[in-house]
Amino acid sequence: MTPPQPRVTPQQPHKTQPRVTPQPHHTTPQTHLVPPLPALRGRRSAKWRSHPADVLPLPVAEMDFVLAEPVAQALREAVDRSDTGYAAPTRDLAHALRGYARRAWDWTVDPDHVRTVTDVGLGIVETLRRLVSPGDRVAVSPPVYEPFGWWIREVGAQPVDVPLATRPDGERRLDLSALEETFAAPGTVAYLLCNPHNPLGLVHTREELTTLAELADQYGVHVLSDEIHAPLTLPGAVFVPFLSVSEAARRRGFAFHSASKGWNLAGLKAATVVTADPAPKRYVDRFSPHSLFRTGHLGVLATVAAYEHGDAWLAEVVRALDHNRVLLGELLARHLPTVGYRPPDAGFLAWLDFRRVPGAAGRGDDPAGYLLETARVALTSGLGYGAEGRGFARLNFACAPDTLTEAVSRIAAAC
Amino acid sequence: MTPPQPRVTPQQPHKTQPRVTPQPHHTTPQTHLVPPLPALRGRRSAKWRSHPADVLPLPVAEMDFVLAEPVAQALREAVDRSDTGYAAPTRDLAHALRGYARRAWDWTVDPDHVRTVTDVGLGIVETLRRLVSPGDRVAVSPPVYEPFGWWIREVGAQPVDVPLATRPDGERRLDLSALEETFAAPGTVAYLLCNPHNPLGLVHTREELTTLAELADQYGVHVLSDEIHAPLTLPGAVFVPFLSVSEAARRRGFAFHSASKGWNLAGLKAATVVTADPAPKRYVDRFSPHSLFRTGHLGVLATVAAYEHGDAWLAEVVRALDHNRVLLGELLARHLPTVGYRPPDAGFLAWLDFRRVPGAAGRGDDPAGYLLETARVALTSGLGYGAEGRGFARLNFACAPDTLTEAVSRIAAAC
Ligand SMILES: Cc1ncc(COP(=O)(O)O)c(C=O)c1O
Ligand SMILES: Cc1ncc(COP(=O)(O)O)c(C=O)c1O
Repeated sequence: MTPPQPRVTPQQPHKTQPRVTPQPHHTTPQTHLVPPLPALRGRRSAKWRSHPADVLPLPVAEMDFVLAEPVAQALREAVDRSDTGYAAPTRDLAHALRGYARRAWDWTVDPDHVRTVTDVGLGIVETLRRLVSPGDRVAVSPPVYEPFGWWIREVGAQPVDVPLATRPDGERRLDLSALEETFAAPGTVAYLLCNPHNPLGLVHTREELTTLAELADQYGVHVLSDEIHAPLTLPGAVFVPFLSVSEAARRRGFAFHSASKGWNLAGLKAATVVTADPAPKRYVDRFSPHSLFRTGHLGVLATVAAYEHGDAWLAEVVRALDHNRVLLGELLARHLPTVGYRPPDAGFLAWLDFRRVPGAAGRGDDPAGYLLETARVALTSGLGYGAEGRGFARLNFACAPDTLTEAVSRIAAAC
Repeated sequence: MTPPQPRVTPQQPHKTQPRVTPQPHHTTPQTHLVPPLPALRGRRSAKWRSHPADVLPLPVAEMDFVLAEPVAQALREAVDRSDTGYAAPTRDLAHALRGYARRAWDWTVDPDHVRTVTDVGLGIVETLRRLVSPGDRVAVSPPVYEPFGWWIREVGAQPVDVPLATRPDGERRLDLSALEETFAAPGTVAYLLCNPHNPLGLVHTREELTTLAELADQYGVHVLSDEIHAPLTLPGAVFVPFLSVSEAARRRGFAFHSASKGWNLAGLKAATVVTADPAPKRYVDRFSPHSLFRTGHLGVLATVAAYEHGDAWLAEVVRALDHNRVLLGELLARHLPTVGYRPPDAGFLAWLDFRRVPGAAGRGDDPAGYLLETARVALTSGLGYGAEGRGFARLNFACAPDTLTEAVSRIAAAC
């Protein structure tokens, strides 16, 4: 049942990563960014409370790094003011996003086209709710972030898989001709784009996005672009906001932004839906009048601080992640050379192919399940990513280099 | 078009408030609870950012009080740990609610029947989504919290008004015979109970709730009991959790709890849906697998701290509110004797009847609109509460006694 899969290993050239200069992994530039493990174990978030203490947790998309000081300060000041009521109906967050998007991506956001929501998931669900009728089809490109399918089903629609294409060099990219076929089929009303793409960390090119937008416009398909990982675009890649590519993109598109991955604020519950044309905006205008009240007030304050004063911290985190993606490649090449790995262009997730690993981890569908038992390392199971994820596991490398080294050595020992 | 309304004025006896002992209003027991006005104006929540600085804001249901120290500490510690990832899939909140419910109301909650959600509004919406089909009817008892109607319409159902009955003494209570009629009518699938009732601050009695549950069970109607104001039940009243009254209530009922009103944590986004029977639980079990991730992590930490260590602070706040509801009665009797007011049994909201006030404030449908312009005092317009709210305004007295005094004197000067 497993469809043919590329055999991408660290030995293969990484075409989209030409500017990555590997750093010697025995320097640990991010020591001051990562609290020691016992302190991390004191955290009460999902990453740190889902497993017993002998497990090294590298699943849930949270980062181990300390908060950006401007964000921590905004939160401390809010607590000192006892400022824990409802998020205010102001445009602060929209203006902060506008400033950040301009500096980071040279993209102009109109604050009147920014709607505040609880999180990216709810923003996508509420948008879809207004676009689809029961039974409608929404296309996705697996392997892709598991909840995409949940969100589509949550509104009564059907996910349609249009897997990423595999190039001769093993590189995986959007399959634009298969997408065209699906867009042309009756009942396809929307495409849920992951930009950058989780779990592969792919950054789509302007050309790909431009063609995608043309196809969407031609067939009357809405494009929902989940851009949550965009602030974590790594050296060598250039993030292109979907709504920036063309009039067609703006006519058909919705973009979803949040500081929750970039600045590690997922638990604070604030995100935005962005449009750039009156037609998509009309759908967003029909959100419940209660949607702002459903947004975290501290999330808004922290996000504003992150967008306005978080550039320096983010640059440091990007350096740390760049270091770690190279380190991970080196560690795998040395200890687990049969594991397939392509360093991501963005984010802190590595999509590891265990299918050629000799022994139990490589034979089963679910290396993450096996490694949790035997290596006491928690990864995210590839099985949540559908048939495309069989034999794969997702590793979160937003941690100290030592933790990453320890995780790979535990995995190697178990393999 | 305005239906006949009771003429409840402070001169009338308050039958359900026999144990309220008025305190002299010139003592201000809560001074240390309320930061000075300039500090409050530094808050960035909805209450403090919706109006210019010359307006005294008494609308949105936030309290001016300082945070409970255990809550502030839990938040500070989380920030110090950079603990801002996803809420953990643990039972901490369920156990904390269980402990609090037992101490406060002698009610036993089963932690396995507690589902964590973003807020009460989303909890009710997600529950309704699983109960209703488009066009179904959901009963409410106006005047009632405006978003009840939004939530019902959000899932494609129709709100059906069953206004509170008016007793000969002017007291308003649930209209159980009208509810029976509505439950018996085709298409009524649920009743959205406000317990305690916003904006009147009514605490329903065990007898009323028992009869309500019997009727619901008899006609197969689900009861969604919004118990968000319950921790703020004031001296003289006894809050009765709907699910505690009978097997019929448990078969038909869902209860919604949160620390967001009691401990002023509305912006932190954490609430719970509670059931006590496998039948309603089955609907909650069908919530999106993503619903926990949509909950505020800091909200969960703060709520656990509030439920576990917030009793002393809450008792102080209840004393302050008890003081303020009496003070408000005295101020109105002295300066605005034609304003109708019944001190609430619970919460910090006063439902003021301006219909007999001579002059502009009393003549229009919307005294809040008039008073914002002329008195520079922001109240919540009664118009959001439907026909029942014409000529009424809602005042939030969770503030310093001085602020309340100033608000009434500004209103009196404008009337
Ligand atoms: C692509 C993608 N979208 C959305 C999310 C979740 O975002 P939120 O918590 O804002 O719903 C994640 C989290 O990892 C993600 O990777
Ligand atoms: C009766 C009632 N229910 C619900 C809410 C809102 O709760 P949440 O913010 O948890 O949705 C309020 C807020 O004032 C309320 O008065």
